[in-house]
Amino acid sequence: MTPANDVLARIEADMAGHQARLLDWLRIPSISAQPAHAPDCRAAAEFARRELEAIGFTAGLRETAGHPVVLGHHPGPGGNAPHLLFYGHYDVQPAEPLELWTSKPFEPAIVEGPRGPRVVARGAVDDKGQVAMWLGALRAWVEETGSLPVRATVLIEGEEEVGSVNLEPFLLANRAELQADVAVISDTGMWNIDTPAITASLRGLVYMHVLLKAASRDLHSGMYGGSALNPINALVAALAKLRDASGRVMLPGFYDGVQDVSPEQAAQWASLGFSEQEFLGDIGLSVPAGEAGRGGLERLWARPTCDINGIWGGYQGPGAKTVIAAEAGAKVSFRLVPGQNPDAIVASFKRFMQANVPADARLDISGGGSPAFAVATDSAFIGAARAALQAEYGRPPVLIGGGGSIPVVGSLHKVLGIDSLLMGFGLDDDQIHGPNEKFELRCFRQGMRSHARLLGALAAA
Amino acid sequence: MTPANDVLARIEADMAGHQARLLDWLRIPSISAQPAHAPDCRAAAEFARRELEAIGFTAGLRETAGHPVVLGHHPGPGGNAPHLLFYGHYDVQPAEPLELWTSKPFEPAIVEGPRGPRVVARGAVDDKGQVAMWLGALRAWVEETGSLPVRATVLIEGEEEVGSVNLEPFLLANRAELQADVAVISDTGMWNIDTPAITASLRGLVYMHVLLKAASRDLHSGMYGGSALNPINALVAALAKLRDASGRVMLPGFYDGVQDVSPEQAAQWASLGFSEQEFLGDIGLSVPAGEAGRGGLERLWARPTCDINGIWGGYQGPGAKTVIAAEAGAKVSFRLVPGQNPDAIVASFKRFMQANVPADARLDISGGGSPAFAVATDSAFIGAARAALQAEYGRPPVLIGGGGSIPVVGSLHKVLGIDSLLMGFGLDDDQIHGPNEKFELRCFRQGMRSHARLLGALAAA
Repeated sequence: MTPANDVLARIEADMAGHQARLLDWLRIPSISAQPAHAPDCRAAAEFARRELEAIGFTAGLRETAGHPVVLGHHPGPGGNAPHLLFYGHYDVQPAEPLELWTSKPFEPAIVEGPRGPRVVARGAVDDKGQVAMWLGALRAWVEETGSLPVRATVLIEGEEEVGSVNLEPFLLANRAELQADVAVISDTGMWNIDTPAITASLRGLVYMHVLLKAASRDLHSGMYGGSALNPINALVAALAKLRDASGRVMLPGFYDGVQDVSPEQAAQWASLGFSEQEFLGDIGLSVPAGEAGRGGLERLWARPTCDINGIWGGYQGPGAKTVIAAEAGAKVSFRLVPGQNPDAIVASFKRFMQANVPADARLDISGGGSPAFAVATDSAFIGAARAALQAEYGRPPVLIGGGGSIPVVGSLHKVLGIDSLLMGFGLDDDQIHGPNEKFELRCFRQGMRSHARLLGALAAA
Repeated sequence: MTPANDVLARIEADMAGHQARLLDWLRIPSISAQPAHAPDCRAAAEFARRELEAIGFTAGLRETAGHPVVLGHHPGPGGNAPHLLFYGHYDVQPAEPLELWTSKPFEPAIVEGPRGPRVVARGAVDDKGQVAMWLGALRAWVEETGSLPVRATVLIEGEEEVGSVNLEPFLLANRAELQADVAVISDTGMWNIDTPAITASLRGLVYMHVLLKAASRDLHSGMYGGSALNPINALVAALAKLRDASGRVMLPGFYDGVQDVSPEQAAQWASLGFSEQEFLGDIGLSVPAGEAGRGGLERLWARPTCDINGIWGGYQGPGAKTVIAAEAGAKVSFRLVPGQNPDAIVASFKRFMQANVPADARLDISGGGSPAFAVATDSAFIGAARAALQAEYGRPPVLIGGGGSIPVVGSLHKVLGIDSLLMGFGLDDDQIHGPNEKFELRCFRQGMRSHARLLGALAAA
């Protein structure tokens, strides 16, 4: 059975429809981090539910302690056909700083770029655009053949951008219903626009919220300076101790379990011809930051990091205000590699901060994390994905590491016992989480076609 | 000539009017730091001009490159009568954080406190309330006697809270018109509500604005973490180096010219019975910050400091955002003591920051400063002030240092060659520059009476 060519033709014929559906979804500001946008998160979930029902899924919203999960099922041919669990997320990052966007983040714009038209909007690629890609492939199969060539379960969550805190309880509570052979996830990138990629390892993440409180009110720095604790001084002093001059993270136990890259892996990455100079040049930088003495891809894919993602305190307006603030805060995150224990790092961070602030400082620290993950690369599913991508792009995909974390990969493995196939179509310059996030329509189209091919390849396997 | 008792009686009879005029002035949000409030600054200046004209001054607004100066003259008895230059400022600090105010900052409230009624508003004591005090004393003298017992020039500027950048040029351009024997300034505090004080030394101030730019846009910390420069990491690392673990400021040359306190001065301060424990306890703290091995009043009055007054960068909202920001900023100030050169410290700070950030960091640094100042304490004017305060409070005033800076004291000395008499009526818990700034009406009343007595004492001298 290889009706894949007919399915591809149907995708092409309906491309305007696929784009229109994506743009409708992007108009919903489903920012999971901001409580005011909870109704929008629900609206984005409802949108996905309707899309699934339109192509024959039984689908519904399932409540969690946070934003709802969209869950759908399609029996496909039933029997022993491969059973895929498609995972994605409908929530998006906050759009701030708004003034740096060239169009409104939730009014998607189709803009002509150097590689053809692109859609510019928050969520264009992370992750609504990539989800819309495989939704389009499923739709084309159903519309062309009346069914799917595989059994399919779809799970689209609404809290990926805030740590997926309610996802694992949901998986645990619904283990039987979620059984599948493999998860298919599109939340990663290509090597470049002509070279597809399968992501074989991902860094984990620990994300911490820190608030340091000092005096009971803001103080005049002339009247109190030299006597009263300045919480910004104290926070800065403690945070600065997290990394030494060579970029090494100083939390006790931080590197426990971290392995050096194997010679084989190092050789494979070297063959990719990665230019860190070019990678940084694209964003206006020239000198690699991070750990001294490590390679570029090694630092991005196989070494843990410490980044302050936000900091605030005192007066931030124009002009001068001679104030000693009552409190100061920061968001601090650590990217983890296989072997590191997120819970141990959370605990070490709390102890470290407490030990490095003055006695009068009252610390509120919260946060959590998920481990790094490496996926098996020799499965039938990876084989089918390689074949699908080879057919679409005329060249084999490269196996790469991922710098970001997709916590669900670990949860799916732990709770359901299944591996994930990470086949994504983003590009390095898509400005994920930044202003003017975009998705190349060429990636959208070829990603949809690749997923359609994947379904055919799996059915034939 | 001692009509002072009649003048004091008139002050008492008109106290409701004095308070009403102050409240009207406080309703004008004359925030000099915020360009949107420029019209309010002008309105506050016009208010002061009308007050002066109402009591026989020739007065007007004088333009500067920033907010206007209010200037008024009263000939008094003419001849060789002492000529006082009253200085004050009508501008106020920004009122943020607004949510911490119990009433609106520009809707003054009369609230009953443990020491009687107080007025709560931005500017209540700094400096509109203290200016209104001596305006009231001048008014009572004119209304009671038809004139003043001294020659008087009044200068009320609108940029004290933003560094008085246009004041010195104004003084230079109007030297002849501003000639006087001494300046009278009420922008300082009492020792406590029962013990008046004359401030004999003031710290100077260097205030710096720092912006550190890295990548050309916000980045995803998973995709770029470990390779791209994080401007918050870099800013924090550089700022942390400004002070060592003992609280000593590490800028090269920072302590050049700093003298230890003389044994006499140390003895006088020791006699004041200052309890740093109590001073800090009032604001919810218990452990002195600042330099190790120095006394409490010494650190507040005679040692320089380094305080980060504001810091910002990246994501500051609820929840998690895994972003590497494009830039980060800070406001950093240094309190100076006699002997330190503000210009040298500005230059040293710029070199220090440049030397302590990575090569890719682009720094924008601006700012400036004014030196510390010590006033002569053996003049006839100080003698008259001591007598006036003794008469009002039934005890002699104490000679104290001031932790804050009043740059005009240095400018008046440099340009006009006159000393300043710093006789102020604020209290430590007035929450200057913070939320719920207040002025005790008892201080307002006794400050007004003390100024009325001062005029009588000077005329009699």
